[in-house]
Amino acid sequence: MDLGFIGLGEMGQAIATNLLKAGHTVRVWNRSRERAEPLAAVGAQIVDTPADAFRGDAVFSMLADDAAAREIFDETLLAQAPRGLIHVNMATVSVALAESLAHAHASRGIHYVAAPVMGRPDVAAAARLTIMAGGPAEAIDRVQPLFDAIGQKTWRFGSLPQHANVAKIAANFTLASAIETLGEASALLGAHGVAMRDFLDVITGSVFPGPVYEGYGSMIAERRYEPARFKARLGLKDVRLALEAGDAVSVPLPVASVVRDNLLDALAHGGGEQDFAVLGEVALRRAGR
Amino acid sequence: MDLGFIGLGEMGQAIATNLLKAGHTVRVWNRSRERAEPLAAVGAQIVDTPADAFRGDAVFSMLADDAAAREIFDETLLAQAPRGLIHVNMATVSVALAESLAHAHASRGIHYVAAPVMGRPDVAAAARLTIMAGGPAEAIDRVQPLFDAIGQKTWRFGSLPQHANVAKIAANFTLASAIETLGEASALLGAHGVAMRDFLDVITGSVFPGPVYEGYGSMIAERRYEPARFKARLGLKDVRLALEAGDAVSVPLPVASVVRDNLLDALAHGGGEQDFAVLGEVALRRAGR
Amino acid sequence: MDLGFIGLGEMGQAIATNLLKAGHTVRVWNRSRERAEPLAAVGAQIVDTPADAFRGDAVFSMLADDAAAREIFDETLLAQAPRGLIHVNMATVSVALAESLAHAHASRGIHYVAAPVMGRPDVAAAARLTIMAGGPAEAIDRVQPLFDAIGQKTWRFGSLPQHANVAKIAANFTLASAIETLGEASALLGAHGVAMRDFLDVITGSVFPGPVYEGYGSMIAERRYEPARFKARLGLKDVRLALEAGDAVSVPLPVASVVRDNLLDALAHGGGEQDFAVLGEVALRRAGR
Amino acid sequence: MDLGFIGLGEMGQAIATNLLKAGHTVRVWNRSRERAEPLAAVGAQIVDTPADAFRGDAVFSMLADDAAAREIFDETLLAQAPRGLIHVNMATVSVALAESLAHAHASRGIHYVAAPVMGRPDVAAAARLTIMAGGPAEAIDRVQPLFDAIGQKTWRFGSLPQHANVAKIAANFTLASAIETLGEASALLGAHGVAMRDFLDVITGSVFPGPVYEGYGSMIAERRYEPARFKARLGLKDVRLALEAGDAVSVPLPVASVVRDNLLDALAHGGGEQDFAVLGEVALRRAGR
Repeated sequence: MDLGFIGLGEMGQAIATNLLKAGHTVRVWNRSRERAEPLAAVGAQIVDTPADAFRGDAVFSMLADDAAAREIFDETLLAQAPRGLIHVNMATVSVALAESLAHAHASRGIHYVAAPVMGRPDVAAAARLTIMAGGPAEAIDRVQPLFDAIGQKTWRFGSLPQHANVAKIAANFTLASAIETLGEASALLGAHGVAMRDFLDVITGSVFPGPVYEGYGSMIAERRYEPARFKARLGLKDVRLALEAGDAVSVPLPVASVVRDNLLDALAHGGGEQDFAVLGEVALRRAGR
Repeated sequence: MDLGFIGLGEMGQAIATNLLKAGHTVRVWNRSRERAEPLAAVGAQIVDTPADAFRGDAVFSMLADDAAAREIFDETLLAQAPRGLIHVNMATVSVALAESLAHAHASRGIHYVAAPVMGRPDVAAAARLTIMAGGPAEAIDRVQPLFDAIGQKTWRFGSLPQHANVAKIAANFTLASAIETLGEASALLGAHGVAMRDFLDVITGSVFPGPVYEGYGSMIAERRYEPARFKARLGLKDVRLALEAGDAVSVPLPVASVVRDNLLDALAHGGGEQDFAVLGEVALRRAGR
Repeated sequence: MDLGFIGLGEMGQAIATNLLKAGHTVRVWNRSRERAEPLAAVGAQIVDTPADAFRGDAVFSMLADDAAAREIFDETLLAQAPRGLIHVNMATVSVALAESLAHAHASRGIHYVAAPVMGRPDVAAAARLTIMAGGPAEAIDRVQPLFDAIGQKTWRFGSLPQHANVAKIAANFTLASAIETLGEASALLGAHGVAMRDFLDVITGSVFPGPVYEGYGSMIAERRYEPARFKARLGLKDVRLALEAGDAVSVPLPVASVVRDNLLDALAHGGGEQDFAVLGEVALRRAGR
Repeated sequence: MDLGFIGLGEMGQAIATNLLKAGHTVRVWNRSRERAEPLAAVGAQIVDTPADAFRGDAVFSMLADDAAAREIFDETLLAQAPRGLIHVNMATVSVALAESLAHAHASRGIHYVAAPVMGRPDVAAAARLTIMAGGPAEAIDRVQPLFDAIGQKTWRFGSLPQHANVAKIAANFTLASAIETLGEASALLGAHGVAMRDFLDVITGSVFPGPVYEGYGSMIAERRYEPARFKARLGLKDVRLALEAGDAVSVPLPVASVVRDNLLDALAHGGGEQDFAVLGEVALRRAGR
């Protein structure tokens, strides 16, 4: 297929590479051109404007945040895009923006598919992403083979794109809460002289299997927050999205509020570029440890 | 071995039954004798006083709470127990009580082993409990075959019994936090029109596998809190233990505070006898759903 | 003096009226003209555009929120305003907007004074407002006689306008916290059979004198939230401003988080148009009362 | 009147002194006799046992906490007390203990009056305490002249002694919340470059008059927490009483939970002996200031 790709951060690069590997033509655009060059080396065509990427059969995007998406996907871009184009937005954006983009695209005859993913860059590189897709069924059907080339499984959330974003935001919140809880548990255990590692072995070997408790728990047990696999300031961005999504529909999320406050504490102590697991350090610091 | 067993609630009955099945002699005592009778039918000897059970090679206990333990395991009982007896306390008691019991037993030459467990009655019946053991290594070595008869794995937390209790309390807190988080996520998803079940499928099929997210998540998705497998008021008891354990060593546990407040909300609305998953209903009610 | 006035809600009407009473010429503008008419009856000149009001010696504004302010005080308006004009913005806006407006005005040679106020419409009508002023000292000196005509006291916060906004936001947060606390206390007292009114008499007659504890406390004691003197949804707007201001500089405000969550609970139960005191009802409802 | 006085901490000394000044006979007892000696110098009779104090017309008590009260006011003491004696307990005890003491006293024909007070030692010395009294009306009537000798006003909470304790606990919670809020506001203001002192002047000069905002606010503004007029660890004891009182009747107190967590943070950082205002330091530390 003839594809465009907008936004070549670590995630975008990994995903675009897998689309190229699957034999597709990919026109790539990134604000700073040097991030596009590694992809040219494996067959991508670097283009000069977002509009050059925003055509063909489908265009994928993976931009950093709402602000970037609002700036790039403006009326001018949509006006010159071919009718029938499918825009697959894989970024974690706000529910409000997803809804607004869905309307703006539909009014121009462009299909908007929200397809946020779970998985960090190494998972993306291994084409093992978990994809949460929302949007017109027909459009998703058409890009499903592309999803299969980049992810291990696609979960569908119906025809409203923003529903996939809500689910993604709730998943991120669930993750954030688990990390916060491990941090608090770590402080409690440590103050009583029990090794966090011993505790982790029990819970990950029984009722809390899976990568989250083991991965973040280990970092907290070792008080090692660098290199960051997922930065605290990005975690904060995600928690803010959850709180905003709750605020918009009058849903209190008290645990999200606690996590947000503790992430601000982390940032105030220089932890913004450290791993999300630095929430553990906040809990330990508050306990004077 | 010649064993005693004190406290025959659902958990105690299941564990004592497995000890009998493994070929041991078991003298059982329970405050209300009728709960002991099913065990007599499978070979246990019903005794009239805790002291009659508190002798032999080892005595297990599984009482409801700190108050019951304080009342039964008093100076009088310990004074008449044989030196060298091993007392295996499987109940979830406070850290303070565990420490106090350990001292009281040691001063009488009785070995005190804390062995709180993870797993509900059906898991206990299947001899699949996860056991967290703390106490003198030699004593634990001697009862290890008994642990193997009732659990699937024993994790050791060193020679201080209370360390096992701290770990158990931290595990319960982790559980409570996960349920609370699922409840909040459910309210967020529902208010945006996304089915909790669809969300659960994604997270349990990817980063949050295991029985907690699936089990409690399903109850929340169905808003079905009865029959209770683990009651909200018992969950509250556990969260209080975590907060007390934190308070004793000046460790703030803000997520535990949130859970406690929401469990009080549940109790105020008649949910104390419902399943711990009723935390989901609190979140939904607060969101006006 | 030759004055303009933009934004004639209840507060704006009362303030503009007092400026007229003090003998000034006032050109008034409001989005819906009918709200301007009562002022014409007492001597104001109704104008057709914000620009017609945005000239003379000074222009006051009291718009509903950031969005309205951003829309009205745009580059076009500022470009056609006379250099040396003083713009006194009395609205409670975000710190970020205050800073941005200060820069935009300064670059056009217009003096920007932030002068948020404490006091509800009846206080404004009585010319008894508490004014918190920030901005160039000379500009504030020139409008001080106007402040004296509408308020009982002006507190100065230095030359940066946004400092007055931070102080105002902090004051609103302090208010919100006091109401929340009274609500929680009311639930505690009620559940123990103690009359909130008796409690209020003690604290307002001793360590908590002043209008906040008496006024909001009485509404909570009577569970009477209408007519609303200050609506819960406006209170939520203010608490959001506090949280945003904290977020921008990495300051956790856990009590503000609690209040925000409880205000969402209030809104989810239809209390958005009720008085801010409806926080008490949230506390009572959570306690099953 | 012929009075006894049990418990001569700073508060007890000041109150007993005023009773002596008013012309009453006062037998005093304190665990460590040296604290009683200054009172002997002004006319008190030092006695050797609590029972020696627990007779006459009325006995006042002001012990440190529930544990001390439980130990002193036991069955033995009550059994030997004269029927008709009035016991005025001025300490801040738990609701549960107040209720239990009321029953125990009544069953022995002793009148139990709860009379917790607001005011620190300097206020007690000036005979300006605010007294919250609960218990049999006739008994309170009889001791009212004594209350008039030590306080500026007595507020009555009906015939159930514990109601006065609930009110006192709620008042302490209101105080704790105000201090916490001032601390959070201080962190917010400071991070934005606004002086806490300027902010305090506005709010104490307008909507938040009275000693709490001015007194604790000033300490926070100066970051001066010593000498402690009321220690953080005693504040924590009071907040625990509020949470326990809420827990007993299923009333969530989320702000109290926040304050408790922050007081634990204070204690973990060595602030237990500092003034209650050290909550401000917790807020500032969390903000990295």
